[in-house]
Amino acid sequence: MNMYKSHLKLLPGIALALTLSTASAHAAQWQALPEKAPEPADNPTTPEKVELGRILYMDPRFSSTGTVSCNSCHNVMLGGDDNRPVAMGVHGQMGGRSAPTVWNAAFSSAQFWDGRAASLEEQAKGPVVNPVEMGMSELKSAIDRVRAIAGYKPYFEKAFGKDAMTADNAAKAVAAFERTLITPNSPYDRYVKGEKQAMTKQQVKGMETFARVGCASCHSGAAFSGPMLSNNGKPFQMKFPTFSDSAYVSKYNLDKDMGRFEVTKSESDKHMFKVATLRNIELTAPYFHNGSVKTLDEAVKVMGKVQLNKDLSDDEVKDIVAFLHALTGEFPEQKLPRLPGTSGWAFEYTEAAK
Amino acid sequence: MNMYKSHLKLLPGIALALTLSTASAHAAQWQALPEKAPEPADNPTTPEKVELGRILYMDPRFSSTGTVSCNSCHNVMLGGDDNRPVAMGVHGQMGGRSAPTVWNAAFSSAQFWDGRAASLEEQAKGPVVNPVEMGMSELKSAIDRVRAIAGYKPYFEKAFGKDAMTADNAAKAVAAFERTLITPNSPYDRYVKGEKQAMTKQQVKGMETFARVGCASCHSGAAFSGPMLSNNGKPFQMKFPTFSDSAYVSKYNLDKDMGRFEVTKSESDKHMFKVATLRNIELTAPYFHNGSVKTLDEAVKVMGKVQLNKDLSDDEVKDIVAFLHALTGEFPEQKLPRLPGTSGWAFEYTEAAK
Repeated sequence: MNMYKSHLKLLPGIALALTLSTASAHAAQWQALPEKAPEPADNPTTPEKVELGRILYMDPRFSSTGTVSCNSCHNVMLGGDDNRPVAMGVHGQMGGRSAPTVWNAAFSSAQFWDGRAASLEEQAKGPVVNPVEMGMSELKSAIDRVRAIAGYKPYFEKAFGKDAMTADNAAKAVAAFERTLITPNSPYDRYVKGEKQAMTKQQVKGMETFARVGCASCHSGAAFSGPMLSNNGKPFQMKFPTFSDSAYVSKYNLDKDMGRFEVTKSESDKHMFKVATLRNIELTAPYFHNGSVKTLDEAVKVMGKVQLNKDLSDDEVKDIVAFLHALTGEFPEQKLPRLPGTSGWAFEYTEAAK
Repeated sequence: MNMYKSHLKLLPGIALALTLSTASAHAAQWQALPEKAPEPADNPTTPEKVELGRILYMDPRFSSTGTVSCNSCHNVMLGGDDNRPVAMGVHGQMGGRSAPTVWNAAFSSAQFWDGRAASLEEQAKGPVVNPVEMGMSELKSAIDRVRAIAGYKPYFEKAFGKDAMTADNAAKAVAAFERTLITPNSPYDRYVKGEKQAMTKQQVKGMETFARVGCASCHSGAAFSGPMLSNNGKPFQMKFPTFSDSAYVSKYNLDKDMGRFEVTKSESDKHMFKVATLRNIELTAPYFHNGSVKTLDEAVKVMGKVQLNKDLSDDEVKDIVAFLHALTGEFPEQKLPRLPGTSGWAFEYTEAAK
């Protein structure tokens, strides 16, 4: 049974994308961003879930120190990340990877850089118990904290019915909220919908270059992150770096992280990563899984070399970067949520750095 | 010249407040929360300043790690603080004092627990360069970061005119935003305006007890934080603990912090602290300058003993706590701001813990 109930028409074919490198921009299957993200059959998006999800997403009290929320590293007020090379969690601890953006994450076939979460629901639980992120010892401790705050109960009841304050439902609510984090109407979207003045001449040229040199082979689909659905459970992923003898690889330490291999220990998964969305990419520097590249210009240059084995000219880089700027969309206005309060008491948070 | 241009009618007399301890609740000068906070003559509140201030307040990029904003410790989505014993800044570092609430802070005669900032404008600059809070080496580095983000310029121009991107103006904008953080229409406010059913019988009884036992001597005025204006530059402050031989003092380590003496080194300022607002006090546990007391019940008991030398009965404590719950107001709905982005680049943040 297909987990997703609709939106199959939005699925770009990988085979099609792979032919783009020789096609012109106009012939390519350029797609505007859908207004809605695909929803799993067992978690249809409702306003009640979105409201609860937004509150949970913003609430720092479910981290060991009470200082780190989902929004700390995936800041929806910014480009959906933290603009840091790698994320910083409780006690100033850091992991080895950069926080991916939450904006348009709903269009990815899998979550986390190594694609280890098949859904936003699954992803949402990960950082809570990651010792260098939110640092809770177990999911149960986190949901126990949610349950201890009386004001959360009506939100759960409205979203899921009675006796529904579970970690699974909390994750469903967060995922439902994240599925609303879509940035439509970028200059690119308006252009592909027929508004030919929406992009500058250089951006149109960059779009053609983007397709011609091969970027669109992997950065395909409406979010430029590949197909939205996994291939029978296998996330859409690519080897990075592909051309590992480039000087950039050692300069930016690009081959240290073994990617999906860390999860599966399967030889064929070495250096396999999900394809990051290019939507709003100008807002999410620094770049790559390890956040090692500081600017978008350099990132394009590096990608040309380590993924396509091409020395892009300065003009090609400038044009592609101009095009990438056309992928910044509109961020829907949201209200600042009130987080239900504890009444006359507070949680015991960890205090001393580990 | 008086720094404040109006609202003098809102000023409660200290002498008056001091007589409250023998007066009944009905005779006391109970005041509803004003709809507007007093504004300094050199920083009138405008919508443009408030909008800029809200954005700056929420922006974590002006901390050394890029992870700590004003809102991290003074969370407006909560009761205006972090619900932690003491605040946690960059690299998980902690100071010795609890983050005071930002809600209704505009009604205090001075800011910080030791009253060392005479205004919200002055206060706003402090945490930015505090090594255990936002950790910037100097204010100039912080405002340089603001200036480097092109999207901030129009906000500053609208609020302050051309060439106005200064630390002083940033602080003015944040202060202007903070002056809008007022929580009106608590059950108490509605009660004193004549809506006699707004408080429960127990809350009314607690209000009378609050006045009778002497709490209102210091916790006077509309925000229960004493007079809004300083006494010729001297902030409204009280000695805490007053009765230092109580067992509570050692139990909760209440006399370690020398309060205003740390600033002035004047003998008479030993253990002098500003009087914390009681507005929304149920939402800001744990309590006291060092966050050592976990519940509101215990906080009331401790205050009775160490400030008034009274052993409050269990019923008196319960009644006063019931009254304090009536001080939770309405939090004005706000929109989640968009933080102007960096375009294709990010700041260099500090990474390693110090």
